[in-house]
Amino acid sequence: MRAVAAAIGMALSLGTAQAQPAPAPASAPLQIREVGSMHVGGRVATIEGLPSQEIVFSPGAPPLRINPNGQFMVEGMYAQYIRLAEPRARFPLLMWHGGGLTGATWETTPDGRPGWQMFFLRQGHDVWVSDAVERGRSGFARSPQVFAGEPVFRTMGEGWGLFRVGPNDGWNAEAGQRRAFPDSRFPVAAWDQFTRQSVPRWVTTDRQIQAAYDAYVQQACPCVIVVHSQGGNFAFNAALNAPDKVRAIIAIEPSGAPPAGADAARLRDVPHLIVWGDHFADSPFWTNIRTNVERWAGAIREAGGRADILDLPAAGLRGNSHMMMMDTNSDEVAGRIQAWMTERGLMR
Amino acid sequence: MRAVAAAIGMALSLGTAQAQPAPAPASAPLQIREVGSMHVGGRVATIEGLPSQEIVFSPGAPPLRINPNGQFMVEGMYAQYIRLAEPRARFPLLMWHGGGLTGATWETTPDGRPGWQMFFLRQGHDVWVSDAVERGRSGFARSPQVFAGEPVFRTMGEGWGLFRVGPNDGWNAEAGQRRAFPDSRFPVAAWDQFTRQSVPRWVTTDRQIQAAYDAYVQQACPCVIVVHSQGGNFAFNAALNAPDKVRAIIAIEPSGAPPAGADAARLRDVPHLIVWGDHFADSPFWTNIRTNVERWAGAIREAGGRADILDLPAAGLRGNSHMMMMDTNSDEVAGRIQAWMTERGLMR
Repeated sequence: MRAVAAAIGMALSLGTAQAQPAPAPASAPLQIREVGSMHVGGRVATIEGLPSQEIVFSPGAPPLRINPNGQFMVEGMYAQYIRLAEPRARFPLLMWHGGGLTGATWETTPDGRPGWQMFFLRQGHDVWVSDAVERGRSGFARSPQVFAGEPVFRTMGEGWGLFRVGPNDGWNAEAGQRRAFPDSRFPVAAWDQFTRQSVPRWVTTDRQIQAAYDAYVQQACPCVIVVHSQGGNFAFNAALNAPDKVRAIIAIEPSGAPPAGADAARLRDVPHLIVWGDHFADSPFWTNIRTNVERWAGAIREAGGRADILDLPAAGLRGNSHMMMMDTNSDEVAGRIQAWMTERGLMR
Repeated sequence: MRAVAAAIGMALSLGTAQAQPAPAPASAPLQIREVGSMHVGGRVATIEGLPSQEIVFSPGAPPLRINPNGQFMVEGMYAQYIRLAEPRARFPLLMWHGGGLTGATWETTPDGRPGWQMFFLRQGHDVWVSDAVERGRSGFARSPQVFAGEPVFRTMGEGWGLFRVGPNDGWNAEAGQRRAFPDSRFPVAAWDQFTRQSVPRWVTTDRQIQAAYDAYVQQACPCVIVVHSQGGNFAFNAALNAPDKVRAIIAIEPSGAPPAGADAARLRDVPHLIVWGDHFADSPFWTNIRTNVERWAGAIREAGGRADILDLPAAGLRGNSHMMMMDTNSDEVAGRIQAWMTERGLMR
């Protein structure tokens, strides 16, 4: 009930926000101080006892005898930053992707529109986009010697229902035969293009992913974190581990939250905004997750903190999918988030 | 002999170049039109016959029963672009990394200096940085069902000799015990940080990598390609496959070249610059590669094309490693390359 009341309150609040910033015109050049990247965290792992291999690395090159044993740098993560000449946000914005994806989530949308990385740059934020351990430019380690188990690969169709673009049985290998929700905001004609962003994931590496995110926070923060799906729980825990470093969390459909009993009082000074798209009624899976996450939001509020819920349909935005940063109204959703950051005093 | 003469000629030419552009001051903001990315190429692969799995993707989330069979989008590649408001280069600069690495090669150096991505942005180029198939944000496909064989992982020490930072026996797990070449330009104190950039690679995927690069060229070019190490052969072949699209190739220690008999005449209008660092005398492996690559450069010249050799020690720059874009004189090396591009008429 509390969550529902908060959701309605947020919807009203955001719908009438007076403090909308004036974004840079889309045609004006961005004034960029620096583009760069770093790798952070990780550890040295030693592998022993594997047989040697002879490998031709490039056509025409002589074979090299490789000893696959030795020391390996593993479990670090990659982050790219784009720093503005004169940021208007008080803190850099760190964008953390969800499961089976990389930082590309935040870049150009699958149908070729500027993504949230560009949106928030134009709004005056220094923007950092990272890849979690094992994903993207963070690289992965040998299995099962370093990462337990095997990587999981996402089929082209799995996300269709899971990301609430359409009903679970709406997927079809033939693009013309797919059934989306009639009001879906996902650019469905670009679905196959979206699936090019998929990367494999392990499901055994939460501890390592968390450790690298914690190291990242120590290096890049104070900051505001925008986090999606699987990343949500890592961001909540990163804030619990460094509440002085994380100045706000905007969680886009987080798929998990700290367990009951976690010390929500530590997040009293870390305002949270949790954003949900549409079509939860079609998804018991997401309804369960939402209940769990909103219990955590309630715990933060009960501890004296702030945890707002932005329920997009209640706020008048219908048809948004789990991948709302790619939806056709992605800028409008981002605008609601920007308004919340402005209201929270996170802009200069 | 021809290659040596060309090398000396280039050294003299670059040493006295009058056409050095005036780069934007390091303190002036870059004027950026757009930051974005895309995935290009790839195909749909079908996997059948694997048993289903039940997986908990996030702590607290209910388990999902996953059928690992189905259709997968595989073998595409990722590219990020940074477009200037007013580029001074005539064509975008595409930067292709080497083996076991990603596009991060071109970004901030391991010791935290701006890398070649920033250098060439400041010189007025639109810069595209990509990840080859399987690497980084391009993602990898299931082995052995899609990619034959197993990934190869690079030890922390393998590159020390292979990249000619020091002698092959100069590596030691203890940083204080490592022996670099006395004049090495690699920032050796940042070696461990550099190894965080390593990613696994397959050695069975050249055809797929080439296909995606070819698709990338069709989408992003006309262009100039700066390519490193393993990427070299892909760039040479990409130019053979689309000589109208590739306006120049700058190959940084390419590790391979097309075979004898490849039609070098197709590259008559594609000027090449091949750049070599120092300490080849210590590396029969690289000496062999160099002979092979310079044979290809000779074939281009004999066919009426232009293939210049920039031998850095002969040009007065000593101690450069295979990772010269990270060496302490990386800007100076890049400056020689920029001078060549200017001389070749590639700037406005």
